[in-house]
Amino acid sequence: MKTVKVGILGLGVVGGGVIDIINKHREKMKTHAGVDLEVVRAADISTERFDQLGLTADQATTDAFEVVNDPNVDVVVELIGGTGIARDLVLAAIEAGKPVITANKALLATHGEEVFNLADDKGVDLRFEASVGGGIPVLEPLTHALTGNEITRVMGIVNGTTNYMLSRMTDAGLSFDDAVKEAQDLGYAEADPTADVDGFDAAAKIAILASLAFNSRVTLDDVATEGIRKLSAADIEYAEEIGYAVKLLAIANKLENGIDVRVHPTMIPVSHQLASVNGVYNAVYMTGDFVGDLMFFGEGAGAGAAASAVVGDLVEAARAYQSGNEVIGCTCTDSLPIRPLEDLETRYCVRLVIEDRSGVIHQLGEVFDKYDVSIKSLKQRGAYAEGQVEFIFVTHRTLEADMQAVLRDIEELTSVVEVASVLRVEEI
Amino acid sequence: MKTVKVGILGLGVVGGGVIDIINKHREKMKTHAGVDLEVVRAADISTERFDQLGLTADQATTDAFEVVNDPNVDVVVELIGGTGIARDLVLAAIEAGKPVITANKALLATHGEEVFNLADDKGVDLRFEASVGGGIPVLEPLTHALTGNEITRVMGIVNGTTNYMLSRMTDAGLSFDDAVKEAQDLGYAEADPTADVDGFDAAAKIAILASLAFNSRVTLDDVATEGIRKLSAADIEYAEEIGYAVKLLAIANKLENGIDVRVHPTMIPVSHQLASVNGVYNAVYMTGDFVGDLMFFGEGAGAGAAASAVVGDLVEAARAYQSGNEVIGCTCTDSLPIRPLEDLETRYCVRLVIEDRSGVIHQLGEVFDKYDVSIKSLKQRGAYAEGQVEFIFVTHRTLEADMQAVLRDIEELTSVVEVASVLRVEEI
Repeated sequence: MKTVKVGILGLGVVGGGVIDIINKHREKMKTHAGVDLEVVRAADISTERFDQLGLTADQATTDAFEVVNDPNVDVVVELIGGTGIARDLVLAAIEAGKPVITANKALLATHGEEVFNLADDKGVDLRFEASVGGGIPVLEPLTHALTGNEITRVMGIVNGTTNYMLSRMTDAGLSFDDAVKEAQDLGYAEADPTADVDGFDAAAKIAILASLAFNSRVTLDDVATEGIRKLSAADIEYAEEIGYAVKLLAIANKLENGIDVRVHPTMIPVSHQLASVNGVYNAVYMTGDFVGDLMFFGEGAGAGAAASAVVGDLVEAARAYQSGNEVIGCTCTDSLPIRPLEDLETRYCVRLVIEDRSGVIHQLGEVFDKYDVSIKSLKQRGAYAEGQVEFIFVTHRTLEADMQAVLRDIEELTSVVEVASVLRVEEI
Repeated sequence: MKTVKVGILGLGVVGGGVIDIINKHREKMKTHAGVDLEVVRAADISTERFDQLGLTADQATTDAFEVVNDPNVDVVVELIGGTGIARDLVLAAIEAGKPVITANKALLATHGEEVFNLADDKGVDLRFEASVGGGIPVLEPLTHALTGNEITRVMGIVNGTTNYMLSRMTDAGLSFDDAVKEAQDLGYAEADPTADVDGFDAAAKIAILASLAFNSRVTLDDVATEGIRKLSAADIEYAEEIGYAVKLLAIANKLENGIDVRVHPTMIPVSHQLASVNGVYNAVYMTGDFVGDLMFFGEGAGAGAAASAVVGDLVEAARAYQSGNEVIGCTCTDSLPIRPLEDLETRYCVRLVIEDRSGVIHQLGEVFDKYDVSIKSLKQRGAYAEGQVEFIFVTHRTLEADMQAVLRDIEELTSVVEVASVLRVEEI
């Protein structure tokens, strides 16, 4: 058994976790996976972590390119993140013919084409299980065990921070602002929570999932993205009343005329398996033509979970490297078009704040009729503020373009103070 | 790309499904998995299926050994099942150096040592994803993506028939007998439902899961097995009242002094992810030291799901076969002891039928004290029959041996008509 020499770029919590796993389970992996992994070089911009992680002066460096270019390094683990120096390092490693393991969802969702094409050209193994769903093995099953299926749908709760916030807004009735603050206090949310609460993190992940599931390139820009800022505890409470949970769902469907891919707060039936995924947990649900429905559930964040995924990739890359296995690559060759959001057909739950009730139902009815939008239920709900009430309506299946037209017209009505929230309802 | 020639033994619904998948997705698998699969030979005891599946006279045979011995067959798929001829065929295929894919849980859980040892000796790939959890990719992640973890627990709902029955007993209050009948009418249960309802099917599956998770041989005989025959809708109803769901759980824990492995009806908190796995669905829940908790959910039965798992294995075996990858094998080298059930420590929920109430609590108290069993709650519950009532008690954590002693003494009490049910309560 040849020792496979690993170079790590970035020694944050995940990088430290990878070193911990290799220290603890190196013998186990030799016996049970047939792979001997050794961390020979590691880089970080700060020297602080070197001692903490027991790295010698020979191993540690503040120059990540030194690790990539070290002829003694067989495989490169990129854990710096972002699309700056991480991109240069990943490209340099691939150019040097070294397999790359990365957790960098931003890089793959924005520069995927460049990175994957170079990897394909060079026949270099590129693995990124940790980029989606933390420690949950989902990309590996998707690209291996499920190859005998046409995957027609993949969707999931792929951002633990917002799922924690929504769980707290549901269980404890917290406001959005209080939920953000609590998530920040617990270290689940960043000081600037934008990437999480505006859905960009989830969008990068569904772009990666959709690319692998449908064998077609989907980038971050292709994903219609809406976060949870406008959600209130009242929306969640009303959803519960009618049997739904509210989740920030990342959804990708392969339809006849292209890929429908989006991230938005979604009402799903409480009986659905995804509805009981609470707190910081993640889950990815998918459907294949033979396998039917599947769900993969687990810890979506945390050093140990992400490090577990990186080491799983390392073991596979090392096995392939040892045996000279041909690399399959991304194979995003199907080039399916992305459907515009306007073509989406789904149901909607809309909460309006109304000032003067007289004649408002008649006015709303006129708007619905104008765009041929069919209403399943319309409900008036307690006092909102002095002289104001809330109206909540749920539509039958409607074209997004028609729904947007309805909302524009409704906002013009004098009695309507505000369209307080619009939630898509998925009958999954 | 070399075409990998497949021979199939057994053309039931799963065998037919494998042929369907290869017919439908052969080109897709060439492009996206780098593998060209072709079914060149197939065997069944009846000739009926040959025409249905479009097999020519050259391809089809009633002699399965002809398929195994055909020099044109590269990989053998065994879907006959059982431990009779299937065992001879699998051993013959391995002896001939051909990778084997099987869904045969009975064979692996009883003759695993013989089969795995031969495969290891010959360096032959043996894959069996379809033997546990139908189409759910669980064995592959366990042995690949999760290699960087020490798995300390694996448990699951791995028998769809009994899970369907329990779901119906819960939702519709069906009796055990009515639930069996309904499952039989729907084709979920066999005419003789023993293997399902007495837990043997689940026991074979947890033996396989535990072997892979803990790298130690666990056989069917090692599994303490109890089915759901004694369960009534009343047990389920009471469990619900105190916040628990009743599931036939297959459980394996790696403890300091060995492996705890068992199958029995179990009360689990309704908030647990496994509690919402209903109907014929299966799910496997596991815990690793770095990855934390994971769950894999999906269709545990059905031709398409099982065929999907077989084809996933075929693709991996074919890739390894093409590239001459070294085979890792079962690596059940840790030889951990199996803990006797008597050493189990858990909580218990016991339902008693009582005839003469006077003094019975005092008598029960004496028994509990004698064996130092601590009671969390004791509740009397409506009339059971003329002059009879039910007592339900829940214990704190107790040694199984003490609990069994308590139950033996309780059965001797004159006022106790019957120990109607004993459920283990898992605080997972």
